[in-house]
Amino acid sequence: MHRSRLAGFIIDCQTDDLDAATRFWSAALQLPLHARSEDGPNYRRLSGAPGGLHVEVQKVDHDSRVHLDIESDDVEAEVRRLEALGATRVAAVRTWVVMQAPTGQRFCVVRMKEGD
Amino acid sequence: MHRSRLAGFIIDCQTDDLDAATRFWSAALQLPLHARSEDGPNYRRLSGAPGGLHVEVQKVDHDSRVHLDIESDDVEAEVRRLEALGATRVAAVRTWVVMQAPTGQRFCVVRMKEGD
Repeated sequence: MHRSRLAGFIIDCQTDDLDAATRFWSAALQLPLHARSEDGPNYRRLSGAPGGLHVEVQKVDHDSRVHLDIESDDVEAEVRRLEALGATRVAAVRTWVVMQAPTGQRFCVVRMKEGD
Repeated sequence: MHRSRLAGFIIDCQTDDLDAATRFWSAALQLPLHARSEDGPNYRRLSGAPGGLHVEVQKVDHDSRVHLDIESDDVEAEVRRLEALGATRVAAVRTWVVMQAPTGQRFCVVRMKEGD
């Protein structure tokens, strides 16, 4: 059986100024900017979230929202498990899969991160 | 100085079947239904989230989304702190305040919960 769990959440911001968006969310949540931003220029990672959750601020073109990430050591198996629960596959992006819950929210299934 | 911190997140579901929505999210996130649902008939609380975060599924009339909760031992002081960062006050509801981030997401400032 593959492993999977809630990895964290991504704060999707429709903005031209990702750094300003990140300053707001970092101050609001009292989570400092992480020293290492690993996923490219459209992401800023925050550190110190409870339970080691992964929190990032992302620049997006769609409306601003918050989306959850589920991480797994077998992304495809996890996507199939979630499809069986009623979720639908929306798109494969690089190493992750965007899904939609039966209740309408988008979320992502991402590769499980080992300790950092 | 008052205290505040990320409390958790609420999965807002535009649904006529809150129990079905809760079954999906409980299974998807692998977080069991909490024995005690404290906030009324439109809420189902999940348990076991990382770092003791508070996670609830809520029945709503607006579009489905995920929103963050910030908890504080002084809700009004925290609302003022967040206004100074650029957020706006949307509505006061029972014991909490709905706010909107400068990047557009709605979030809530709620009373700090003591251990449960």
